[in-house]
Amino acid sequence: MVTMYEIIEKKQRGNKLDESEIKYFVNGYTAGDIPDYQASALLMAIYFVGMDYEETALLTRYMTNSGEIIDLSGIDGIKIDKHSTGGVGDKATIVTVPLAAACGENVAKFSGRGLGFTGGTIDKLESIPGYVTGLSIDKFIDAVNKVGAAMAGATGDLAPADKKLYALRDVTSTVESIPLIASSIMSKKLASGADGIILDVKCGSGAFMKNPDTAAELAQTMIDIGKYEGKDMAAFITNMDQPLGLAIGNALEIKEAVETLQGNGPADLVDLCVSQCVKAMEMTSSKSADECKTIIETAINDGSAYKKFLEIVENQGGDTSYIEDISKLVGTPSSQEWLAENDGYISSMQTERIGISSVLLGAGRETKEDDIDYLAGIVLAKKTGDIVKKGDLIATAYATDSSKFDAAKKCFMDALTFSSDKPEIIPIIIKEL
Amino acid sequence: MVTMYEIIEKKQRGNKLDESEIKYFVNGYTAGDIPDYQASALLMAIYFVGMDYEETALLTRYMTNSGEIIDLSGIDGIKIDKHSTGGVGDKATIVTVPLAAACGENVAKFSGRGLGFTGGTIDKLESIPGYVTGLSIDKFIDAVNKVGAAMAGATGDLAPADKKLYALRDVTSTVESIPLIASSIMSKKLASGADGIILDVKCGSGAFMKNPDTAAELAQTMIDIGKYEGKDMAAFITNMDQPLGLAIGNALEIKEAVETLQGNGPADLVDLCVSQCVKAMEMTSSKSADECKTIIETAINDGSAYKKFLEIVENQGGDTSYIEDISKLVGTPSSQEWLAENDGYISSMQTERIGISSVLLGAGRETKEDDIDYLAGIVLAKKTGDIVKKGDLIATAYATDSSKFDAAKKCFMDALTFSSDKPEIIPIIIKEL
Repeated sequence: MVTMYEIIEKKQRGNKLDESEIKYFVNGYTAGDIPDYQASALLMAIYFVGMDYEETALLTRYMTNSGEIIDLSGIDGIKIDKHSTGGVGDKATIVTVPLAAACGENVAKFSGRGLGFTGGTIDKLESIPGYVTGLSIDKFIDAVNKVGAAMAGATGDLAPADKKLYALRDVTSTVESIPLIASSIMSKKLASGADGIILDVKCGSGAFMKNPDTAAELAQTMIDIGKYEGKDMAAFITNMDQPLGLAIGNALEIKEAVETLQGNGPADLVDLCVSQCVKAMEMTSSKSADECKTIIETAINDGSAYKKFLEIVENQGGDTSYIEDISKLVGTPSSQEWLAENDGYISSMQTERIGISSVLLGAGRETKEDDIDYLAGIVLAKKTGDIVKKGDLIATAYATDSSKFDAAKKCFMDALTFSSDKPEIIPIIIKEL
Repeated sequence: MVTMYEIIEKKQRGNKLDESEIKYFVNGYTAGDIPDYQASALLMAIYFVGMDYEETALLTRYMTNSGEIIDLSGIDGIKIDKHSTGGVGDKATIVTVPLAAACGENVAKFSGRGLGFTGGTIDKLESIPGYVTGLSIDKFIDAVNKVGAAMAGATGDLAPADKKLYALRDVTSTVESIPLIASSIMSKKLASGADGIILDVKCGSGAFMKNPDTAAELAQTMIDIGKYEGKDMAAFITNMDQPLGLAIGNALEIKEAVETLQGNGPADLVDLCVSQCVKAMEMTSSKSADECKTIIETAINDGSAYKKFLEIVENQGGDTSYIEDISKLVGTPSSQEWLAENDGYISSMQTERIGISSVLLGAGRETKEDDIDYLAGIVLAKKTGDIVKKGDLIATAYATDSSKFDAAKKCFMDALTFSSDKPEIIPIIIKEL
């Protein structure tokens, strides 16, 4: 009979934990039989020693099995999910899901809310009046079967072991460990029941992962975990050294997503969403990437991608008049123009600070209990690599409460650095795995 | 204002903690303001990252300051303490303390009880009928002033931070860390109020430290901590790859200590006790080692060392008739002779197993609540390097309950290995620091 002490000691000494030990830990901790202080000691040992792919996969498996596992077998065909590690201005889900559905995919997308400087897809969707994000599994399945896609909040008690472990990691400085991050994300993804998972691992000043090598390591670990469970896996390492697209804020991002579905999106967002959609199509068909791209371009150009989004919104109870007349959605909040104070190239954007600036405007939550101002946010006029003259418009800020502009502006302007030489531009897709 | 999270993270990332952070941790944890799960995460980070000598010294200082600090200023002159990390058959304290007192030293010795496979000085002394180990500080000081030495149990609430931290380390696999071991031992020593401390760090199969290099690292760390607080420090790394002397067990070890004080001790025990006594004398005088040795030899040969032991026993209420007629002390328990089953040299003794064998006979406690059989134990007839023939006596076992012999014998015999070549003999004193 193994003890928790022996498990800690074994990992601490650099050894590989076997399945029975991982099971004992996850089940015992979730059940409350293993105290927090032993769990945190093990987590810190894992932080230092690491886990190989098999340990990480088994850790994930038992975290997944700690709660409900959504049965999506009621959806016809292959079910694709996508997951982003979160960034500023990341509305890719809201583009990719209808786009892929318009191209014939079944997309079963569970999303989260925003906290801290990153927004959440669920909050963005709820800026559309009437849109219901809390679907039962049966209604979720019906929605996918009816229109090819559903975007809803994670329901039920998915991976409770992860909830409990994450809360402990959060107060013991054991968040930043690749096997622990990967198992946390993947336990929830595996519990969500899709057949194929496309990962978007953000990298840069607006992401948890600051450099491409560790982002790629995390992505590869998650791919390995998914494959261990027989899932079809793909991952993109994408640039979060500046916001994705131009819009940051809930209604503002829906607007940009709609424009992108209509063929008028910013280049980085288009590139990312098309690439994700190609990947989804490759998972479910034998089409070449070029064939997929042609189908995707047609779906955008003939309006079927946009129509698919309207269908999804309507199917989930949303008032499509707010999409058809997008000016209704973004409303008429107060606004303020933020102008360049110097001449030069924008050489970098501290993207986390830009996210915080949008939170200060009301677009996000500082604590879980905060209300969101759906109309608040920032629309960039310039991005990294653009040249500006003093007085040029860099961004327009929106907020229902105009007293919020000053602090948000300071935070935003502090995030920018300027140079006299044109900086190197990092492409949106840094690596594909 | 520092937080525990930041302290964990700082250490985890390989940085040095400053005094305010160490103080915050020790005081907060002792007061119950810092939860166990954060403390264990920090301890595991310290296990991996380590602490430099200043961090370790400050950790020790705040652990010391967490409770009572014994004021020995009522004792005239320089007060010397000794500390052994514990081993099998280690009765050196019971020899060195009266020996040093007979040579004019003031020896203020607080000792502990045995637990697990190592015996405790307090238990050994309590095998002498009437001997009181629980002295108040005033009585302890009076005792040292009167006869030059006292041997008693640690009184009061010394270093409560260590008690709490040790209990946590014990269940989170964070015992084996040099800075944590050193601070644990030294916090109690520093709280005991002596001016000079002589350390005996045991090393080998019957000790916590298995190899001389880590034992020396531990000893040096403890020396550094003591010097940081202005104490006079010395340390011996001594061999615990076999029991010290020949006797293991409470009354049996008192008997061997008395014989040693009378000039009839086993060579290893004599060597260690004389060396410790020389070190104590060097701390309090300008005498050379050779001068000290001459004084010590005289104290043994003229009977004053033995008389000093009688004085100490009498002063603490012990019945000296049990020392003067030592056969009264060791009594007439059942005995069993353990004979060699093969020919050959004894090439090694798994000393921990020999300690466990003595516990199985009743000489030690398996749990804190167990009673001790003071008469139980083992007297070795052979040690490592000795040659034996099948049927030769290797050891005689003693126990009040003769049903205990079989299990103890198996444990003991399993501890021995034999070889056809004479093994290398490790000296009792491996290193002096």
